[in-house]
Amino acid sequence: MAGTADRLLDATSALMIDRNSVDISFSDIAAKSGVNAALIRYHFGSKNGMFMALLERDAGGTFDELEQLIRADMGAAQKLRHHVHGIIKVYFRFPYMNRLAAALAIDADSETARFLSERFTRPLAAAQRAILEQGVAEGVFRPVDPMFFHFSLIGACEHLFVARHSLHYAFGIDEIDDALRRGYAGHVTDMLMRSVLMVPER
Amino acid sequence: MAGTADRLLDATSALMIDRNSVDISFSDIAAKSGVNAALIRYHFGSKNGMFMALLERDAGGTFDELEQLIRADMGAAQKLRHHVHGIIKVYFRFPYMNRLAAALAIDADSETARFLSERFTRPLAAAQRAILEQGVAEGVFRPVDPMFFHFSLIGACEHLFVARHSLHYAFGIDEIDDALRRGYAGHVTDMLMRSVLMVPER
Repeated sequence: MAGTADRLLDATSALMIDRNSVDISFSDIAAKSGVNAALIRYHFGSKNGMFMALLERDAGGTFDELEQLIRADMGAAQKLRHHVHGIIKVYFRFPYMNRLAAALAIDADSETARFLSERFTRPLAAAQRAILEQGVAEGVFRPVDPMFFHFSLIGACEHLFVARHSLHYAFGIDEIDDALRRGYAGHVTDMLMRSVLMVPER
Repeated sequence: MAGTADRLLDATSALMIDRNSVDISFSDIAAKSGVNAALIRYHFGSKNGMFMALLERDAGGTFDELEQLIRADMGAAQKLRHHVHGIIKVYFRFPYMNRLAAALAIDADSETARFLSERFTRPLAAAQRAILEQGVAEGVFRPVDPMFFHFSLIGACEHLFVARHSLHYAFGIDEIDDALRRGYAGHVTDMLMRSVLMVPER
């Protein structure tokens, strides 16, 4: 039965990417996956339960990597570069992530919203703060507000992958391929590095 | 009757801010405004028509100012600083703006999506490109990709005002007051300036 749960999550993920929306119903998911809607309830309890499982599948694994990165014997500048590339990879694959978390936080009870923040936002913010503090201690970063840094980093990393209509109608681009993803990752990384480095890289 | 249309737009705007969502029904708006739902249809034709009117009211006026800024006899660095502060002011007042445009682009026909891009995204991207080109011509900016710059600017400017659940549960902040808005505007402006300036400011 593990296969069915995975198929349901795959179908949901594909629908959210395809429609550029997290407003997806059980019957959409049933039609896409070929799995009876009753089985969705059996596996996940509710739509919110299923959406939580999707978030965990998409992003949960990245937090072990993030912890390893923070503990690694590596300069803060290099850590920050890795971190930004990692974040952009997640939004490239799962552009709906923040909208899904926001929809859950609004629809579900406040315990869910609190859980989402504890599971995802806090570890992310804590890791970024640790990298910033390391960089200041090394004398390579100037001090910046870690909360402001967090919001500007996440917003900048995410926006290209969310604003698909702008990309299409204002810039004539239909699909974000790997070259575009890498170009954007380079741009955002460079911007964030310059914003904290005492001496810009050459 | 102009007063009624304004009241409806005010009520819709307040609901979107309050719920941190653009998923608002005619009956919500009727209850909030005290205006009969039939009158909403009379004034705006449809929910999409009303949402278009709200976007135009919230953001339409800023484009005249933006054109004046582009034509002003002023250095590119100063123009960019004004521009970023202006964008952040809009998201501070109307945090739902991009989500509203995205919902319209998905729900409505592709002509609406095209119109939204022509009315809002293209002039914004063109203004940013003009500022970047002026800065390069003045010898103060290094060349950056204007499309990447656009997406990173918009994402960074917007995200604090959208991620209200993160702000509450991960940072313990319930309300974005004017001091917080100014602090964030300073951070984002500084980040974007450093990303383009040949020589960082002191």
